[in-house]
Amino acid sequence: MSDLLAYLDSNDARFHSELFEFLRIPSVSARSEHNADVAMAANWLRDQMQRAGLDASIHPTDGHPVVLGEWRGAGADAKTILIYGHYDVQPAEPLELWDSPPFEPTIRDGKIFARGSVDDKGQLYLHIKAIEAYLAVHGALPVNVIVLAEGEEEVGSEHLAPFVEAHAERLACDGVVISDSAMFAPGLPSILSSLRGLAYFQIDVDGPSSDLHSGSYGGAVVNPAMALARILATLHDATGRVAIPGFYDAVRAWEESVRAQIRTLPFDEEAFRHETGASALGGEAGYSVLERIWTRPTCEVNGLLSGYTGEGAKTVLPAKAMAKVSCRLVPDQDPDTVERQLKAHIAAVQPAGVTVTVRALHGGRPWRGELAGPLFDAGARALERAFDRAPVIVGEGGSIPVVHDFARVLGAPVLLMGFGLPGENAHAPNEWLSDANFTGGIRAAAFLWEELGKA
Amino acid sequence: MSDLLAYLDSNDARFHSELFEFLRIPSVSARSEHNADVAMAANWLRDQMQRAGLDASIHPTDGHPVVLGEWRGAGADAKTILIYGHYDVQPAEPLELWDSPPFEPTIRDGKIFARGSVDDKGQLYLHIKAIEAYLAVHGALPVNVIVLAEGEEEVGSEHLAPFVEAHAERLACDGVVISDSAMFAPGLPSILSSLRGLAYFQIDVDGPSSDLHSGSYGGAVVNPAMALARILATLHDATGRVAIPGFYDAVRAWEESVRAQIRTLPFDEEAFRHETGASALGGEAGYSVLERIWTRPTCEVNGLLSGYTGEGAKTVLPAKAMAKVSCRLVPDQDPDTVERQLKAHIAAVQPAGVTVTVRALHGGRPWRGELAGPLFDAGARALERAFDRAPVIVGEGGSIPVVHDFARVLGAPVLLMGFGLPGENAHAPNEWLSDANFTGGIRAAAFLWEELGKA
Repeated sequence: MSDLLAYLDSNDARFHSELFEFLRIPSVSARSEHNADVAMAANWLRDQMQRAGLDASIHPTDGHPVVLGEWRGAGADAKTILIYGHYDVQPAEPLELWDSPPFEPTIRDGKIFARGSVDDKGQLYLHIKAIEAYLAVHGALPVNVIVLAEGEEEVGSEHLAPFVEAHAERLACDGVVISDSAMFAPGLPSILSSLRGLAYFQIDVDGPSSDLHSGSYGGAVVNPAMALARILATLHDATGRVAIPGFYDAVRAWEESVRAQIRTLPFDEEAFRHETGASALGGEAGYSVLERIWTRPTCEVNGLLSGYTGEGAKTVLPAKAMAKVSCRLVPDQDPDTVERQLKAHIAAVQPAGVTVTVRALHGGRPWRGELAGPLFDAGARALERAFDRAPVIVGEGGSIPVVHDFARVLGAPVLLMGFGLPGENAHAPNEWLSDANFTGGIRAAAFLWEELGKA
Repeated sequence: MSDLLAYLDSNDARFHSELFEFLRIPSVSARSEHNADVAMAANWLRDQMQRAGLDASIHPTDGHPVVLGEWRGAGADAKTILIYGHYDVQPAEPLELWDSPPFEPTIRDGKIFARGSVDDKGQLYLHIKAIEAYLAVHGALPVNVIVLAEGEEEVGSEHLAPFVEAHAERLACDGVVISDSAMFAPGLPSILSSLRGLAYFQIDVDGPSSDLHSGSYGGAVVNPAMALARILATLHDATGRVAIPGFYDAVRAWEESVRAQIRTLPFDEEAFRHETGASALGGEAGYSVLERIWTRPTCEVNGLLSGYTGEGAKTVLPAKAMAKVSCRLVPDQDPDTVERQLKAHIAAVQPAGVTVTVRALHGGRPWRGELAGPLFDAGARALERAFDRAPVIVGEGGSIPVVHDFARVLGAPVLLMGFGLPGENAHAPNEWLSDANFTGGIRAAAFLWEELGKA
C-alpha cells in the first residue's frame, strides 16, 4: 500500500467526523433566517482548509461569502488547477418526510444521510482531504491549487461570476475540477460531458382583490386558480413536447456517436421507474429516458399555491394563484431567450379578467465539454485507479451554471467528476452520499494530483 | 291608519330597544367560550316569544338548543305556518376592523350596526314583533303559527334536520317562512326563488414517492402538478361551459318568464365588477352575470397546493399535487350524480404515471321554490303593501341547506322573504341591518298574517 493510501486509511474516522461537523451546520442559502449558519459554514471551511495546508481566506460578496484556499508552492511556471464546490445546501422541508433529522448525519446501509451530504458538502470536502493527505505524505503538490467554495449555488450563484471576473488574474488556471454530480451506477466512475441549463420563473395570476364567496360570485368572476391551470396546460402538446413557440429553435442536435454511447450504458428503465416510485414514466415522444434527461429541454411545474389548502371544505373563489415553473435548457438555448418566449406565449393565451405576471427568478446556461486534453486524461486515469475500471462518459439533467462561467471567464477546460449515485435524493428528503464513494472519491481526488504530476 | 299600523308605530321605540338587548348577547355558536351566551340568547328569546303571546319552550340538542314558539288558537282545521330563523351569530373577529363594538348596537346613517343585526337576529325578531302586534290588535291569528329558532346555523345546522325529523308531527305545517336573505336593492322587496347546491371535492394527484430533483428526473417522470393542471383545464371548454360529460343533463331550464324578469332588475355589471376588484368579468357564454350566478351550475377551483411554494426558486419535481374543486349545482342536479360524473371524467383524462384520487368532501342539494300558491301570493301582497311596490323574484348563488331539509321533511312550500341589503357585511366586520327594513320587515310580516287570513 502506498504512503498516500495508508494515510487515507488511517485518517478515515477523523475524515468522517469532520464531514459530520460540516453537515450539522444548516447552511440553507435560500432562507435569511439561516444567514448566520451559512456564515458559520464558511468560517468552518476556512479553518479546515487552513489545517489541510492551504492559505485560506473569506471573501464577502453582496450575498453569501466565497471561501478561497490556495497553495502556490509549485511556482509561477507550474500549472494551476482550480477546485470548485459549494458549502450551501437546499432547504430541508418537508421535515416530516425525513427518516432522520436532516442536519444530524447518520450512516445507514452504507449511506451518509444528511442535507448536503452529496450536494455538495461531501464532494467538496473530499477534495480538501485529498489535498491534506497529498501534502502530508509528499510535502508538496505537483501543481498550484486553488479551492473556491461558494455559498450561493442553491440560490443561483448570483455573485460568483462577478467574483470570478473581478479576481480573474488571481484565479487564472489551466483547468477546473468540479465534483457536484453523480456516478452512473455504483462502482462505475463517470465523467460528465454535459449539463442542462435552467430558466426558473414564478407565474402570479391575480383576479379579484380578495377571496370571494364561491356561491355568491362563482360563475361570473374569472377564477385565478382555474386560469392558471389552463395556462399551464398550454405549455406542452399531447406528445409531451414543450409548446412554447420557438422553444426548440436553438437546440443543437447531439452527435450520433454520443447518442450511441448513451445506448450502451447499463440503464434499466424499469429499475429507474421503480426508484422514482411513479407508476409509469413519461416525457417527450421519440427519445429514450436518458436522452430525455440529458439531451432534451423540459418545462416543469415546481410548485402551486392558491386559495384554501387546509383540511375540509372552504368555498372560496381565490383572489390569486401562483406557480413556480422552470425549464431545463440544452445547448445552445439561453435563459433570456426562453424568458422572452414564455412571456410572449403566456401573454397570448391568458384570459381576460386576471392579471398574469411572469418573473424570472434565476437562470443558467447549459454546457457541453470537450472530451480530451491533459486534465481530462489525468482525471480518467485517477478514476480508473480509485474504482478499478475506466470511467464512462455521461450527461446530466441538472444544472451547474458556474461551469459555463468558469469556461467563459477563465478560458480553462472543466473536468466534472462526481461521486453521487442515482437515488441520492439531492434536493429531496433523505439526501445521502454513498460512504464508499466518499472514501473512493478522496482516493480519486488524491490520485488526480499524482496523475497531473506525471503529465 | 289601521290599528295594526298604529300599534307598530306606537311601539317602535320599544321594538328597537328589545332588538338591541338581543344583539348585545354575543351568541357566537362556533366558540365554546360563548356557550353560556348562546344559552342566554335562547332563554331571552323564549321569554320574548312568551310575552308576544306564543307558548314558548327550549329543546336541548346535542349542540345548542332549539327554541320553539307556538300559537295553536286557529284550531286543528286551520292551516299552520312555520317561521324559521336562527339566534346564533358568526364570530366578530377581526375586532379591530369594526367601527363600533360588534355587540354594542348603534344606528348610523339609517343602519343598525351589530353582529347578528341582519344575520339573523333582526330578521327573526321582526317576525316575533309582528305576531305580538297582530295578537294585540286582533286577539287571534288567522292560522296556527310555529316559530322555530335554532342556535347552530353558523356552524352547519348539524342537529336541525334530526330535530325536524324527530318532531315532524308537531312541526307539520302548510308553509315555511324564512327571513335570512337580502332584498335586491333598497326599496325593492324580494322573494328568493332559488338556491344553488354544492358538490365539493378534493383531487389528489400522486406521482413519484418523494419530491425529485427537476434536473435529474425532469423530462422522464410525469409531473403531478402539471398533470393536475392539465386535468383541471379539461373541466371547462373554451366558452366557459363545464365540460364534464353529463354535467348539464339534469339541469332544468329556467322559465323564460323568470329569465326575462331577471333582465329587468336594476343591476349594474360595472359596479359589480368594481366591487370584486377583478379587471373583467367572465363565465359561461350566453348568460348574463345574474343568470351565471343564480341559474347556472359552476365548477371552481377553491385551492391548489403542490411542491415548493416558498420564496425564491426550488427545483423540485413534486411528488404530489392537490386541488379543492367544487361545483355549485342547480335543480335538478344532485351531488351524488355529479360526483360519479367527475370521477368518470377524470378517470378518462388522467395520464399514465400518476394516481388520481377524487374524494367528495360535502354536498348539498339545490332548491327552487314554486312561484305560486297561497303562501307565495300572500307573501307577495304583504311585501307590496309594506314597501309600496311589488316584490321582484331573485335567485341566490349560495346554498342554505336547511331549506331543502324543510321542504323534504315537512313537505311544505318554503317562502324566502329577506330584509337584508347588498353590502350588509354578514359574516364580516361592520354587519348592519337597514333600520327602514327592520320597520318595513315587521310591517310585511304582520301583513302576511292579514293576507293569509284572506286566503
